[in-house]
Amino acid sequence: MTAPRIAIVGAGPGDPELLTMRAVDRLRRADLVFYDGLVPEAIVDVAARARRLPVSRRDGPDRFSPQVVASLMIEAARAGERVVRLRAGDPFVLARGAEEALRLVEADVPFEVVPGLTSALAAPALAGIPLTHRGLASGFLVVSGHAPSAYEAPLAGIPPGSVTVVILMGLAHRAAIASHLRAHGWSADTPAGIVTSAGWPDQASWRGVLADLAGGRPDIGREAPGVIVIGDVVNLAAVIGGRSVPSSALVEEPAWQR
Amino acid sequence: MTAPRIAIVGAGPGDPELLTMRAVDRLRRADLVFYDGLVPEAIVDVAARARRLPVSRRDGPDRFSPQVVASLMIEAARAGERVVRLRAGDPFVLARGAEEALRLVEADVPFEVVPGLTSALAAPALAGIPLTHRGLASGFLVVSGHAPSAYEAPLAGIPPGSVTVVILMGLAHRAAIASHLRAHGWSADTPAGIVTSAGWPDQASWRGVLADLAGGRPDIGREAPGVIVIGDVVNLAAVIGGRSVPSSALVEEPAWQR
Repeated sequence: MTAPRIAIVGAGPGDPELLTMRAVDRLRRADLVFYDGLVPEAIVDVAARARRLPVSRRDGPDRFSPQVVASLMIEAARAGERVVRLRAGDPFVLARGAEEALRLVEADVPFEVVPGLTSALAAPALAGIPLTHRGLASGFLVVSGHAPSAYEAPLAGIPPGSVTVVILMGLAHRAAIASHLRAHGWSADTPAGIVTSAGWPDQASWRGVLADLAGGRPDIGREAPGVIVIGDVVNLAAVIGGRSVPSSALVEEPAWQR
Repeated sequence: MTAPRIAIVGAGPGDPELLTMRAVDRLRRADLVFYDGLVPEAIVDVAARARRLPVSRRDGPDRFSPQVVASLMIEAARAGERVVRLRAGDPFVLARGAEEALRLVEADVPFEVVPGLTSALAAPALAGIPLTHRGLASGFLVVSGHAPSAYEAPLAGIPPGSVTVVILMGLAHRAAIASHLRAHGWSADTPAGIVTSAGWPDQASWRGVLADLAGGRPDIGREAPGVIVIGDVVNLAAVIGGRSVPSSALVEEPAWQR
């Protein structure tokens, strides 16, 4: 069986060393790479012989719709080129990867999916926060924080403290999210953490409690990609964080305030 | 700064190509590897020059407690050896990785954590199931299904259909878990899927509805490691699954019944 000419590849949180072996293989053999602005240059560079087509900027909206990107991929694949669609994190976690995949299915063009490390899990791990820990949490909930319609229902229902809560794309709404949890029984002193730019050279972290978030803290000057973690496990970062990967240790005073 | 002599490394779901570059590097340079039985030989083999110490069997309890494993790692690291603690999936997701890490902290021995692909996310991805999809799910809940105390509270609270539910280590309790969700408002015809041995050569999948699970189906002859996925996104596997990675496509009649 011949390998599909199109690979939808997860780039992981940002550090090239956190690419999977299969992702590196597909990038090295690619003729054409479509990538999101959230994917660092060092990862796109792995595709040394490929033409590159940025689909979005780091902080901006997509330049092209999933339909247009899929059409371009299909055209290239039919012309015999090896195509990689590179997405930050995992292509199937809050990344619209399935929307492009469904276009390829409609066009009857074979493809493969190469999972990557989502920042929902890798960001806490790199900051020394285990999402589960015996006696503290036996599960976790990951939701998008980009709009109230995405997070309000699940956060209203989950029993306070029963699992760790992880929020992607929620920095802009951090006060509303924290107030929403408070209104549904979560204690003001529930540990909370934020990890920005996980796996990038400018990774920074903050640790506080839910009441801080509800009050608009921390004072983040830019809207970097960031992950919010809420639950008792955040306190383990104070113990583990400083020991694991020194460059990514949690700091009480985040880099963006220095 | 010298790299820590101990690395707690996530092995991913089972396919060696899904190791991260950093995991491969740490394995290749290791003198001593402690590994779980859930990690396939092909991955342990990457540590070509290391002595190997299996900590548990694939289907059995741990041979050594976290305390004993940590003590052995500390002794080796202090003797100048490079040590890798290899865990299936991600070391910080339902894997007791943090328990060993805390022992290392107590002993003041530096270490690093190398995140890996957890089967909670990689198993659905390899079966063509996106955990989130516009209009179907904007988040997901991951819980351990090994005991009612681990899953009952979060599953009782999460509003039906508001997020995709992923259950690890829950095959033995699949009927009780599904009945619990039914009792808390989840529809009998909610799509449900099971992926066993994700990333292994014997990967198999099943797709049905919540009522099937509640009735004890599917008839799994062995208690393989498996991931249960519940939510509308499971239906996308019927579309995407057969197209993405042919070897891991969802099958209506699972391999274990043939």
